Amino acid sequence: MDVVEVTPTFEQYAFTFGGVAPLRRVTPGTALRLWSDDAFSGALRSATDLSAEKVDLRYVNPQTGPFFVEGAEPGDTLALHFVGMEPARDWGASAAIPFFGGLTSTERTATLQAALPDTTWIYELDRARNTVTFAARHGDLRIDLPVEPMLGTVGVAPAGGEVRSSLVPDAFGGNMDTPQMRPGSTCYLRVNVEGALFSLGDGHYRQGEGEACGTAVEGAMTSTVIVDLVKGADSGGGPAWPRIEDDTHWMTVGSSRPLEDAWRIGQTQLVHWFEELYGLHPMDAYQLLSQITEVPIANVVDANYSAVVKARKSLLPAASAYGGLHDDLRARAATLL
Amino acid sequence: MDVVEVTPTFEQYAFTFGGVAPLRRVTPGTALRLWSDDAFSGALRSATDLSAEKVDLRYVNPQTGPFFVEGAEPGDTLALHFVGMEPARDWGASAAIPFFGGLTSTERTATLQAALPDTTWIYELDRARNTVTFAARHGDLRIDLPVEPMLGTVGVAPAGGEVRSSLVPDAFGGNMDTPQMRPGSTCYLRVNVEGALFSLGDGHYRQGEGEACGTAVEGAMTSTVIVDLVKGADSGGGPAWPRIEDDTHWMTVGSSRPLEDAWRIGQTQLVHWFEELYGLHPMDAYQLLSQITEVPIANVVDANYSAVVKARKSLLPAASAYGGLHDDLRARAATLL
Amino acid sequence: MDVVEVTPTFEQYAFTFGGVAPLRRVTPGTALRLWSDDAFSGALRSATDLSAEKVDLRYVNPQTGPFFVEGAEPGDTLALHFVGMEPARDWGASAAIPFFGGLTSTERTATLQAALPDTTWIYELDRARNTVTFAARHGDLRIDLPVEPMLGTVGVAPAGGEVRSSLVPDAFGGNMDTPQMRPGSTCYLRVNVEGALFSLGDGHYRQGEGEACGTAVEGAMTSTVIVDLVKGADSGGGPAWPRIEDDTHWMTVGSSRPLEDAWRIGQTQLVHWFEELYGLHPMDAYQLLSQITEVPIANVVDANYSAVVKARKSLLPAASAYGGLHDDLRARAATLL
Amino acid sequence: MDVVEVTPTFEQYAFTFGGVAPLRRVTPGTALRLWSDDAFSGALRSATDLSAEKVDLRYVNPQTGPFFVEGAEPGDTLALHFVGMEPARDWGASAAIPFFGGLTSTERTATLQAALPDTTWIYELDRARNTVTFAARHGDLRIDLPVEPMLGTVGVAPAGGEVRSSLVPDAFGGNMDTPQMRPGSTCYLRVNVEGALFSLGDGHYRQGEGEACGTAVEGAMTSTVIVDLVKGADSGGGPAWPRIEDDTHWMTVGSSRPLEDAWRIGQTQLVHWFEELYGLHPMDAYQLLSQITEVPIANVVDANYSAVVKARKSLLPAASAYGGLHDDLRARAATLL
Repeated sequence: MDVVEVTPTFEQYAFTFGGVAPLRRVTPGTALRLWSDDAFSGALRSATDLSAEKVDLRYVNPQTGPFFVEGAEPGDTLALHFVGMEPARDWGASAAIPFFGGLTSTERTATLQAALPDTTWIYELDRARNTVTFAARHGDLRIDLPVEPMLGTVGVAPAGGEVRSSLVPDAFGGNMDTPQMRPGSTCYLRVNVEGALFSLGDGHYRQGEGEACGTAVEGAMTSTVIVDLVKGADSGGGPAWPRIEDDTHWMTVGSSRPLEDAWRIGQTQLVHWFEELYGLHPMDAYQLLSQITEVPIANVVDANYSAVVKARKSLLPAASAYGGLHDDLRARAATLL
Repeated sequence: MDVVEVTPTFEQYAFTFGGVAPLRRVTPGTALRLWSDDAFSGALRSATDLSAEKVDLRYVNPQTGPFFVEGAEPGDTLALHFVGMEPARDWGASAAIPFFGGLTSTERTATLQAALPDTTWIYELDRARNTVTFAARHGDLRIDLPVEPMLGTVGVAPAGGEVRSSLVPDAFGGNMDTPQMRPGSTCYLRVNVEGALFSLGDGHYRQGEGEACGTAVEGAMTSTVIVDLVKGADSGGGPAWPRIEDDTHWMTVGSSRPLEDAWRIGQTQLVHWFEELYGLHPMDAYQLLSQITEVPIANVVDANYSAVVKARKSLLPAASAYGGLHDDLRARAATLL
Repeated sequence: MDVVEVTPTFEQYAFTFGGVAPLRRVTPGTALRLWSDDAFSGALRSATDLSAEKVDLRYVNPQTGPFFVEGAEPGDTLALHFVGMEPARDWGASAAIPFFGGLTSTERTATLQAALPDTTWIYELDRARNTVTFAARHGDLRIDLPVEPMLGTVGVAPAGGEVRSSLVPDAFGGNMDTPQMRPGSTCYLRVNVEGALFSLGDGHYRQGEGEACGTAVEGAMTSTVIVDLVKGADSGGGPAWPRIEDDTHWMTVGSSRPLEDAWRIGQTQLVHWFEELYGLHPMDAYQLLSQITEVPIANVVDANYSAVVKARKSLLPAASAYGGLHDDLRARAATLL
Repeated sequence: MDVVEVTPTFEQYAFTFGGVAPLRRVTPGTALRLWSDDAFSGALRSATDLSAEKVDLRYVNPQTGPFFVEGAEPGDTLALHFVGMEPARDWGASAAIPFFGGLTSTERTATLQAALPDTTWIYELDRARNTVTFAARHGDLRIDLPVEPMLGTVGVAPAGGEVRSSLVPDAFGGNMDTPQMRPGSTCYLRVNVEGALFSLGDGHYRQGEGEACGTAVEGAMTSTVIVDLVKGADSGGGPAWPRIEDDTHWMTVGSSRPLEDAWRIGQTQLVHWFEELYGLHPMDAYQLLSQITEVPIANVVDANYSAVVKARKSLLPAASAYGGLHDDLRARAATLL
């Protein structure tokens, strides 16, 4: 399989889902090797670079794309399989941005309190050991943490003619900020416009669930992804909300506020997927999932919060989605490694 | 170590935290072997037993206790170490109770819609294989699931003279419904009244995170627990919210509504615990935890929702809480097995 | 009609709903003239009295009561008609208490930010002009505001053996903090325990809707209230949530978190009341109320938030609740003035 | 003053804020007389027209506009003064749309329950008596209700290149659904793009606060509005969130989820406006507003919920905003009537 390499110039980045002309057209089955900048557009390079001074809020969370997928029509299902993700710089950055994050008041959870101190942390990458190093800003503690690369943001153009900031997660995917979006995963997204117009970015060298301070170990990333398409008739119409499949789990992602609504979305969506996968009555799917789901919070810091609802395949009878597409993509990915 | 066995009569169960005379007095260091009935007080014994007909809502979630811990005073820290939990019946029960659960409107998330159908599932236990069996009510699917015993409800008498239903989780613990409350875990709770007055119950043979339908595989349980006490001066005053420690993780549990507030509580509490454990500045603890926490939702169905925030010890330098009490309890527990 | 006067000593105050022995027994039809202290138990007497220093959090929001109503049984409806409320001191107090209120992080909406400055405002009362005076603490602005006396807290003992702090509003009433609880209003509460055990307090000389900073113009109050009782058979079993009736409106109060759940409770409860009052189908009641309700937020600062849902009688055909009890109480009240 | 009349064809309606070419260019000071269709695009004309059959969800909430305001630049303040609103048809329509509204589960507050019955109500307009008539669908009750015309939706193009559905309220205004948007009111909106690109629609012949069932008495409307502009330097940069001024109140509108966040936004915004209007310290503005604000919920049914926070001018010293623009617009409006 050939791999198409794309490294955007700064002017080529997209800062929204929807509303941007395609960067390139690709046919289903194409493998792409995509360079994406970090969420700060590379503006934080030392611990003395403060986000209030260095980060231009018009240019945060740059996306590589959008890509026009040939033949994709509204109601189809776009499948993006992540073959690999490699840190593209030797350091990542994280920051407590004033009035942004989970343990501070924000523009929406508005209070009259002063902001937390604007603070930046730089994580040095050790490629040999595959670690990034946390270095305390107010003390000497240093901790090496495993690199676990993931993409915070993967999405398509929204429905209804909407254009959304790349900071937003919603039914179209976007800034879900879940560690599940990692090598080996396949993400299924409903196509809302001709060509799907997907893009991705927001590489994280690692991230805790919830992304508490609002930023992960943000880093430029080189991602290898295989693009595929399931036409509407075969897929029952494209999933209403993002689905993720990997070798071990069936997963759905709900994004909304309050956080219980994000969870309600994810949990009902997995009930409905189980109706399809196992022919279960919804009450039986509800019951079964009540006893087996794993539910990691993805983020409590974005414009919408995200929750992931997962069911472990090893607990369940064999089943396949989209004609066994994930397994097929894994096999194709193996030829690229 | 001696083990004190307690099997309450029905009249001896507590249905509140606080407001109940002690069932027994115990000294710190005591091991207890406690029988607890299931959350339905044993009323659902076949799939034709419907909760609307069989379950008396005045007698749900019976608690075994409360126990008066000698020497416990407000501000101390109660430590409960779970040595083992064994299913005490050969079946568990689960139910979709009308207007109760996460994927239905409820008394509080009130709508005008009709209830979901009142439905009961019985899970047969296979002790040899250590499984319970899901049996679809609307089809033939049967799935054996591993038994993973846990207690949904562990708590002390609340502060401020309050008395709370055993269905409620809050700062005093209670009905947190997290799978983390399992053998091998130590739960730390702030003592609010003389004697702490802890009780426990709501055994689950297994439960998904979120406890979506509102009930787990509910089952009578025999729990072995070692009771210990950290006096106030040593513990900095008892944790504001429940903490859990096991061999692999530091954990906090927040319970509130909306769910993001439960998470905010859990996440800030773990920041504060990390200030103690590692001498970190709060901004550094906030940053470090943002990159490493695991955040499983515990329940989205109770009077308050609960979120667990966890940090994996293997990622961190060695540290010990309460003078290494958890390791000490593990050693003591080993003598009981 | 005789009026029974009650002025509690400090030791006689109740700080919870439930869990307190009755202060006095009263028969239905009794008029009471009750003295209640302010929510700070009188601790803030000048603008230099800071809440962190002067307010003992164990003794906030003292309630006058509880009163055991002869003949009241679970399922009955308690009616409390407010004849008059008179400021009992010549000043009221308000405060921005650290980490309490609506525009600050709190114990539940927890962040890592510093508290807002602990600040106290004293409002001088001018009885002749019936005003209290706002005096800026950081400038010279003084504004005379009309006295509009109300009670923040009115409730009965909760169901299920619970005991709740007087800071909490819920199905039993309690700290609803709505300006609708004023002279001329009748409050209907479901009786949960023998004798109902109602109490009241938290006088406000005036309050904005939402009670943004967490405290109103808090003041000692002398309230005249007529107590009455509707036996279960006549009332359809006591309202699930508090109802208020005055000469102009039918009202319900919902209290929960998030705030939309408080609203959902209040709105569904008014739908159900309209089914009773007008014989409407629930879909028709839903539609009619969608076009006429007034929905002032009561508080966004307490342990639960409260929303009031109101329907203006003048828009509607004549109807009467509880056999015209409110009009009857108004007539009885007129004999007291 | 001349009045420019605009009656769009169906093809000219906008269904988003942003992303649409201007319908017309206007200079500040212009008076417009705008015809807008109802939120169903006129599809519900009898009680037997069901929304599931007749309403094309791609064409709901049509907006008249957008208008390009000459000279408007990002950071300026657009002022829209509503001179008059006249029902443009002799009937209005309301509907309980499946899975839409406040007392049903929805796409976001997702449950597994069945939808409420799809139901339509038609309200006949009596121009002489200025009433619309509620007619029960499940009984004979008919109630004449006063016409109180308002616009559910008024907004400008969003910031950051976003395009939002006309069903959404947010910082750019949009579908706030507040009865305060009525004749005599001036709405201030921050300009985000060249020309502001405002549009309006969603006429309501009347609406209860909260818009409980999701739809008001929806009706085509002829609205007369004067457009004006305050350049950035004069206005301190355009309000972060919508402000409304009428003869009696200063108002702000917050829109978000959960509802308490909508309120927090509105309340902090009014604090900040009071800092400007009265030179108050924020803690004093917080305190003063805590005692005087009126807080009607606007909607609990849209993509974001909206709360209005109001301060009554008659309680306050004289003050003027934007150089007394509202009074000036009132005077200009008087010449049109």
